[in-house]
Amino acid sequence: MRERFVIIGGGFGGLACARELGDTKHSVTVIDRRNHNLFQPLLYQVATAALSPADIAEPIRRTLGRYRNINMIMAEVIGIDAQSRQVLLDGNDRVDFDRLVIATGSEYNYFGKDGWRANAPGMKTIHEARQIRQRLLSSFEKAERAHDEQEKRNLLTYVVIGGGPTGVEMAGAISELGRFMINRDFRNIQLDQLKVILIEAGPRILAAFPEKLTEYARHYLEKIGVEVRTGEKVLDVTSEGVMVGFEFIRTGCIVWGAGVKASPAHRWLGLDAVPGGRIPVDRRLQVVGHRNIFALGDTANFTGTDGKPLPGLAQVAKQQGIYLGRLLKNQGADSAAFEFKNRGNTAVIGRNAAIFDFGNWTLKGRAAWFLWAFVHVYLLINFEKRILVSIQWIWRYLTRQRGARLIEEGSIGKIDESVPSVVYSVTGPGGDR
Amino acid sequence: MRERFVIIGGGFGGLACARELGDTKHSVTVIDRRNHNLFQPLLYQVATAALSPADIAEPIRRTLGRYRNINMIMAEVIGIDAQSRQVLLDGNDRVDFDRLVIATGSEYNYFGKDGWRANAPGMKTIHEARQIRQRLLSSFEKAERAHDEQEKRNLLTYVVIGGGPTGVEMAGAISELGRFMINRDFRNIQLDQLKVILIEAGPRILAAFPEKLTEYARHYLEKIGVEVRTGEKVLDVTSEGVMVGFEFIRTGCIVWGAGVKASPAHRWLGLDAVPGGRIPVDRRLQVVGHRNIFALGDTANFTGTDGKPLPGLAQVAKQQGIYLGRLLKNQGADSAAFEFKNRGNTAVIGRNAAIFDFGNWTLKGRAAWFLWAFVHVYLLINFEKRILVSIQWIWRYLTRQRGARLIEEGSIGKIDESVPSVVYSVTGPGGDR
Repeated sequence: MRERFVIIGGGFGGLACARELGDTKHSVTVIDRRNHNLFQPLLYQVATAALSPADIAEPIRRTLGRYRNINMIMAEVIGIDAQSRQVLLDGNDRVDFDRLVIATGSEYNYFGKDGWRANAPGMKTIHEARQIRQRLLSSFEKAERAHDEQEKRNLLTYVVIGGGPTGVEMAGAISELGRFMINRDFRNIQLDQLKVILIEAGPRILAAFPEKLTEYARHYLEKIGVEVRTGEKVLDVTSEGVMVGFEFIRTGCIVWGAGVKASPAHRWLGLDAVPGGRIPVDRRLQVVGHRNIFALGDTANFTGTDGKPLPGLAQVAKQQGIYLGRLLKNQGADSAAFEFKNRGNTAVIGRNAAIFDFGNWTLKGRAAWFLWAFVHVYLLINFEKRILVSIQWIWRYLTRQRGARLIEEGSIGKIDESVPSVVYSVTGPGGDR
Repeated sequence: MRERFVIIGGGFGGLACARELGDTKHSVTVIDRRNHNLFQPLLYQVATAALSPADIAEPIRRTLGRYRNINMIMAEVIGIDAQSRQVLLDGNDRVDFDRLVIATGSEYNYFGKDGWRANAPGMKTIHEARQIRQRLLSSFEKAERAHDEQEKRNLLTYVVIGGGPTGVEMAGAISELGRFMINRDFRNIQLDQLKVILIEAGPRILAAFPEKLTEYARHYLEKIGVEVRTGEKVLDVTSEGVMVGFEFIRTGCIVWGAGVKASPAHRWLGLDAVPGGRIPVDRRLQVVGHRNIFALGDTANFTGTDGKPLPGLAQVAKQQGIYLGRLLKNQGADSAAFEFKNRGNTAVIGRNAAIFDFGNWTLKGRAAWFLWAFVHVYLLINFEKRILVSIQWIWRYLTRQRGARLIEEGSIGKIDESVPSVVYSVTGPGGDR
């Protein structure tokens, strides 16, 4: 029987699911509010001027264009009519489905202080990464021109909030970028005016990793000039700086990486009270109480074999997407429950420094860094991007130059810019990968 | 004697001049309102989703960072005090000079209708190229979703105003991009709904080239689906479309390439009435009436040996920059007048189609296209960019895929966005190269 499958969200999970359903007799529609899928694990390199947005993003149409049975709609989903089996889009459009997959990912959690978002962008969209890049580079230019010593120091203070992988990657990369630029390209600012502060509310950074890796990361960060502050809580974020305890830190750029929550897709199903906004699913990713609706990745609350919900990792979403695609293709014939295979957890700290946690064994230092680079190039979207990113990395490794140090015209980096409200994030999971 | 040289503008001319003065006993300051120099001849490829901005732009600090005697200031020039020999910057700063070089390039000429700019961006800045890319790609997405046939046709109509090299390049590239995307990636729009119109007020396109090359270009453009209209005047440009004669053409995206004028730098010298805003200079590029001030490239009105002003070409600016750098370095000892050596004029029309005019002989077709590609890669900023652009071109040549088809979040592509007013353009000349 020919079925109409609709997938909301073209991130890691949604696309993996769509690919499995490509070139089958079924009709597949992928809906996304963006035209591209984004390789989020490398977005911090866009924010720190090492890569261009197009190096890590690809139009969803390009990814799926070869499958003639797959259709893509760039639109905003505003609701789901489970009764009549329709997805409601902006512009008064409706899309019929026989089975629906919700793969809308996660978004940054500002813990109710959504006003902080404009001052402290996260690392979920190209727009945010470009905002950060713009502010970062502009603050160096302003500091170079500043006449007042204190003003220079304020401009060259960078605050990263959240000690997860994204926060650690950003803090390390900002410090390395700043040191390189001051040494080579600027004349009126000195190294001792640069300050990168990583703030974590919990007792240690990289809490998802074993303690000895945390120790290594902290040590390495401090070596490259990052001030790591744990057990400190951010009380306020303004366009001028960050309030931490009783101290107000003036800063040239603030980065948010302090936790994610599921996209608000659960509201479309009337599930307002689910914990963390994650939609409860059964062992086969079917939404509890909805026979024809499935959810996966950061959007879904799937309990692992250890009784804990699976983490919001790209590999979880991808594995679930493949699983679900096969399940739908076979129309339920393959009825085994989903099982997550842990491929290892990683974070990069700086040049020649990364950590890996494979559960049974760990890896750190230069070898981990090379493995990290190799794995991330391998996981990239297609062959062209792999070559482009490889060349830029090799170039950067040899010269320490970063290729994308552009301050663009227009209003992109200004603090007062109105950032479009994120209704749901479809760029895939990876918040705390 | 150690002198203080100040160069306003980090385009082709300004940078060529600064490089000549690198590692000398003199102190050099380059002032630019942008942090990067832009390889403008390839900007149309950013606008048509083939390259990323960072592929064709480089921070000026990176270009000049190796010369310890050169300082860069990212600032807006607001005036020149010729009496006290100071350049006035925004933020109440002043920079002293012994000799000053004005290399501020040109900007698009909207013939007094500056309100048209927001609806019809030109091809001078990364911001404008990204605006065009965003509108172009968004119009395809909207057309795919449109229910009304006429609406689809309106969205898929593209108007390029101006039949110079930039206009021809844009029209050809839009048509090729549109055809490829419709064939492969879209399901609800057809080839016959796509329409690219190139409007030229004069009697023929590419008027700077010999007539037989114009004929070839026109024929080729028509073959790849561009409607070439000559002798037609644009009377109005709105957010909805373009008024040409008595016809209002509704469109998804308008591109402006209808002529350039010099940056308003002449006003800083009190020269309000110079023709085309180009500052009159003598045979050694010295501004008439100002012993210590020089001008070059699109900003300067230099009369060639044929009695006509030199055209606004990148090669003119570059040659003048090198000449002036040497003149200043030798403190006037080398007193020969500047002489322009014509390296040939080129325009690219489409895949496998370009034209070259070397004065005595011409070249067109596939050979010209390969030569064009080779020359432009060779002229690119540095080795890394050359490799990156080469790979993307080879990839595109083989697959016809374009790597930068990104619609970004945020307000970049919206018509009503407030575009920052361009006080002067420093990205170098090349308006009608």
